[in-house]
Amino acid sequence: MIVILRLGHRPKRDERVTTHVCLVARAFGAARVMVSSKGKDSRLEEGIASVNKRFGGDLTVETGVPWRQTLRDWKGTGKGPIVHLTMYGIPLAIALDRLGKDHGKDMLIVVGAEKVPGEVYGLADLNVAVGNQPHSEVAALAVFLDRYLEGKGVTRPMAGEMEIVPMERGKKVIRR
Amino acid sequence: MIVILRLGHRPKRDERVTTHVCLVARAFGAARVMVSSKGKDSRLEEGIASVNKRFGGDLTVETGVPWRQTLRDWKGTGKGPIVHLTMYGIPLAIALDRLGKDHGKDMLIVVGAEKVPGEVYGLADLNVAVGNQPHSEVAALAVFLDRYLEGKGVTRPMAGEMEIVPMERGKKVIRR
Repeated sequence: MIVILRLGHRPKRDERVTTHVCLVARAFGAARVMVSSKGKDSRLEEGIASVNKRFGGDLTVETGVPWRQTLRDWKGTGKGPIVHLTMYGIPLAIALDRLGKDHGKDMLIVVGAEKVPGEVYGLADLNVAVGNQPHSEVAALAVFLDRYLEGKGVTRPMAGEMEIVPMERGKKVIRR
Repeated sequence: MIVILRLGHRPKRDERVTTHVCLVARAFGAARVMVSSKGKDSRLEEGIASVNKRFGGDLTVETGVPWRQTLRDWKGTGKGPIVHLTMYGIPLAIALDRLGKDHGKDMLIVVGAEKVPGEVYGLADLNVAVGNQPHSEVAALAVFLDRYLEGKGVTRPMAGEMEIVPMERGKKVIRR
């Protein structure tokens, strides 16, 4: 089970970027996104619930989550590694070697907004850089999951009220 | 040379997501991002120029570009394929086979915002889906470039006033 912890979400300002984080999590088959924000952001939660209804899948999004407690609880239960994506971390290829190929295990992936508290670097089991350059956390999450799942993340079938049929040109959607 | 055409950018509303598109383009070594928007967005252009100055690289960002003319001009010169990333397109693995491994050739990659004009599907040489699910164009661009460049996109060295040194915990930055 893959769980994402999104740090430092400010409702309104970060709405679109956090939505992108959730869409990536969903497209790659994560189970849950926990969003650390001051208070609930029900627009964000409902937005993803609506995508699930239309296109399938069951990603849950929970906002207003306290990040420190979440990290400590995860560590306390010894569930699986906490992977923090940061441009300051170790190279992706090295991190993937250490994580191994048991893709069934639980993993908590942490993605930040601009400033990530120093404590997070200590609580993470791995601080991983998808390139040591300023990047997009949306992109870092997608590339990490694509590589970790060896390209199989985005090809899992999911279907809801609508299903998209791949085609050369134009749009083909089956409605149920 | 890889060039990105970002469609439907609305200054302010799309500022952050288009910035993420540009950061991905830069991190993976694209030469240029052309942004189709009403009028110039100098904040966006200056933001990326500032990242180049600090962290290296020479990605140029041009806003206020007319998308139809850009696509027609590119096609007219016969430079290389136009690849449109869309959830309605053919699977990524098939598209990569067709594109082959000549990574030196020119390529124009088109990424849209919510609604992409139908004409774009016709002008593109390949309509490619990084998963046939609603996704983030930032993520789609990153995964496409990571796969197309066979993982070598994010490991190219780039240095400006600052250089990040990968490490297990914390942050290490060399300033020049």
